[in-house]
Amino acid sequence: MDKANVQSAFDRNSERFIADWKQLLRFPSISADPRHNDDCAKCARWLAEWLSTSGFDSRLLETASKPVVFAERKGSPVKPTVLFYGHYDVQPADPLDDWITPPFEPTIKDGRLYARGAQDNKGQLLYSLEAMETLIRARVPLCTLKVVLEGEEESGSQGISSSLEQWKDFLSADVLMIADTRAVSSGAPTITMGLRGIIGLAVTLEGAACDLHSGTHGGVAPNPAHELSALVAGLHKPDGSIAVPGYYDGVTPPTERERSLANAVPFDPLVYESETGVPPMAGEKTFTPAERSGFRPSIDVNGIYSGYIGEGMKTIIPASATAKITSRVVPGQNPESCLEAIVRYLRRNVPAGLHFRVTDKAAVGGALRLNPDSPLVQSARNVLRRITGDDPALLWEGASIPIIPAVARVSGSEPLLVGFAGEQDKAHAPNESFSIGQFRLGYVYTALMLSELAS
Amino acid sequence: MDKANVQSAFDRNSERFIADWKQLLRFPSISADPRHNDDCAKCARWLAEWLSTSGFDSRLLETASKPVVFAERKGSPVKPTVLFYGHYDVQPADPLDDWITPPFEPTIKDGRLYARGAQDNKGQLLYSLEAMETLIRARVPLCTLKVVLEGEEESGSQGISSSLEQWKDFLSADVLMIADTRAVSSGAPTITMGLRGIIGLAVTLEGAACDLHSGTHGGVAPNPAHELSALVAGLHKPDGSIAVPGYYDGVTPPTERERSLANAVPFDPLVYESETGVPPMAGEKTFTPAERSGFRPSIDVNGIYSGYIGEGMKTIIPASATAKITSRVVPGQNPESCLEAIVRYLRRNVPAGLHFRVTDKAAVGGALRLNPDSPLVQSARNVLRRITGDDPALLWEGASIPIIPAVARVSGSEPLLVGFAGEQDKAHAPNESFSIGQFRLGYVYTALMLSELAS
Repeated sequence: MDKANVQSAFDRNSERFIADWKQLLRFPSISADPRHNDDCAKCARWLAEWLSTSGFDSRLLETASKPVVFAERKGSPVKPTVLFYGHYDVQPADPLDDWITPPFEPTIKDGRLYARGAQDNKGQLLYSLEAMETLIRARVPLCTLKVVLEGEEESGSQGISSSLEQWKDFLSADVLMIADTRAVSSGAPTITMGLRGIIGLAVTLEGAACDLHSGTHGGVAPNPAHELSALVAGLHKPDGSIAVPGYYDGVTPPTERERSLANAVPFDPLVYESETGVPPMAGEKTFTPAERSGFRPSIDVNGIYSGYIGEGMKTIIPASATAKITSRVVPGQNPESCLEAIVRYLRRNVPAGLHFRVTDKAAVGGALRLNPDSPLVQSARNVLRRITGDDPALLWEGASIPIIPAVARVSGSEPLLVGFAGEQDKAHAPNESFSIGQFRLGYVYTALMLSELAS
Repeated sequence: MDKANVQSAFDRNSERFIADWKQLLRFPSISADPRHNDDCAKCARWLAEWLSTSGFDSRLLETASKPVVFAERKGSPVKPTVLFYGHYDVQPADPLDDWITPPFEPTIKDGRLYARGAQDNKGQLLYSLEAMETLIRARVPLCTLKVVLEGEEESGSQGISSSLEQWKDFLSADVLMIADTRAVSSGAPTITMGLRGIIGLAVTLEGAACDLHSGTHGGVAPNPAHELSALVAGLHKPDGSIAVPGYYDGVTPPTERERSLANAVPFDPLVYESETGVPPMAGEKTFTPAERSGFRPSIDVNGIYSGYIGEGMKTIIPASATAKITSRVVPGQNPESCLEAIVRYLRRNVPAGLHFRVTDKAAVGGALRLNPDSPLVQSARNVLRRITGDDPALLWEGASIPIIPAVARVSGSEPLLVGFAGEQDKAHAPNESFSIGQFRLGYVYTALMLSELAS
């Protein structure tokens, strides 16, 4: 199918696509929260049925945790086999009070659909599937298409990762298509050339056996909230670099070509500030923002809690303090070693008299760096140039899709990451949304790229 | 009445006293939480009725906030007038999950009564009132007794403090008796010679307009949780002293006699650690623990919160971070100036690009330091020695009863602070309790001290 055919197919079917999208978004498939296990299972069943009625052989693969949706549609044996990866789980919706419309009641306003997962990843996976369904209905020549949709991308991908090796034959492919990345700016075609890996931990500092009266004990008993704050503050040096000893050991620097391609993407600090509300002032000052997020590791506290946070005053020295921490790692870093380095550093700086406990710890997944000059990337650049008229940007992304390096390895395929997400979509935050225009662009790209691969 | 009479009066009436105590504890009179305003009002009415039926003229004085219970019973015009101060409000009961029995269902176990307020202050105020009632019933010669019970001691005493001047005539007295302090160790008679003042504030550091994806933005966008941690960590120097510039300016040092009396109270770091769970390692190393809590200011974070603290991972850079902070101040420090000094220091250290907001701020009350050699203190020492056989300890207390300096000034009276609370009571914490033995000791002291003052 050519560009005009695909665009008109979208416009004829857009009502049905949006209805599907809304149905998919109504499942509160929050993988981090065990109370939503059943919602995740229901969401997986819905997708498997949708794929069946759309021309695929589909099934649910049970794992130790959430089910994985697998589907296949045989195509030309002489063309490359395409494996599409997506995830049907979503981030928690907290803080709930900040949502203008309820997170699991999809609502269209001013051409955008608002819901948790509207973009990440239900919006991007659905335009991909709708494009496949359009090609199947049109009976055009196609590659063999395989689809794998997991339910734990947002919380560690344990289920899929422990089963990958046994699914080697199902997954075997030449191209691994992923639509879970962003465009460098609204509507600008973008191919993602790298992802950071991610590790996570939760730590608790324990002091007194119970909260102490801050009058009687203030200036005598140690305060875990103070000491945890000192530990958190100590994770970074004043110059913005990570203070954990040895953390940068082994970091693979970008090639000169990678660095110049990464810096070719226009970056305006004022635009960044107007889009996010903050200037791009964190991290190492000797690197550009694109280099910092693309080629350098980062550590962030995602949550911290101690003592009384209700209304009014409660004059206590809290008994304990807890922080949830994640770090993004880059090629050349060993995720397990990084995790151990953080734990060791924190533990070494705990003052005598307080007890340090690691309550959760996971080396979720490693980093990925791709070849910007491969034939597959050249094809994708051509397709994107045909759609938009612009040469696509190549992006070394700061975010992670931790399972991708493993899926690529087991399936023997080359990853191709093209997505149309943007900052305005507020992925992971309240009032997540995705525009119908973005959805349409993703649909057109997927249909044309699959046509190109089958030609 | 003499010691034997009073003790036998307690033993004859203890069932009734405990029934009264339980009734008083069933009111969840949490002053910090506006949802409990009605419970506070009901608790005040119950006390006013109890005082009426016990021989006092009682009434509720309305304030801008919670009502104040006032009661009077005329006695000898040639003896000193005694004003008793107590508070019927309690601290919040959070964290609720840590209570073994519900906080507002008083439960006796192994000779201790468990409930929020069992000690602070409902237990100690009630043994005082029961002792007065016993003396009134016994028709022995008495001083004029006045009782003032406020409902906001745990949350700033706004109601009473704004009305004190207009109640000057009601309150006029010679001795201000307070039973809201502790014994230096279980059963050891103790007279409190000083209290620290208290100030409080809540601050929020705001970053991005909403939570940001920690992958895309990690190492680029500033993290308010990191920066608030740095601010909190910066409140103290590595030597344990307060880092806020000028904070110690004006601090009145103790006299040599005060210092040696304060240090005469036995203090064993190992006993402290076994009682609280932590070694006494906070604060300035150049002062003893008794000096640190009695004569030196302290700053404590009572609560800190940012980002996601639920189950699992949520990979965000939080949009904001909040800390609730209180400081204990000592004679010679101006509470308002201390508050401003903390705010100024925090504000000056906020990194560019983040917004600092003070969301709450109160100079709750100043400090108090009494004369250890006054005739009133000598009388109390004699009474306590008669009860226990031991010379009482003199304690310069780290905690605050912020309204006491003002009540003492307006009433023209000399404060006398004797209480029997202990660390094992867990005031302000889950599973607060007070033993029937402590209650009895307080009752006996109050009855004998009032007899002494009337003799």
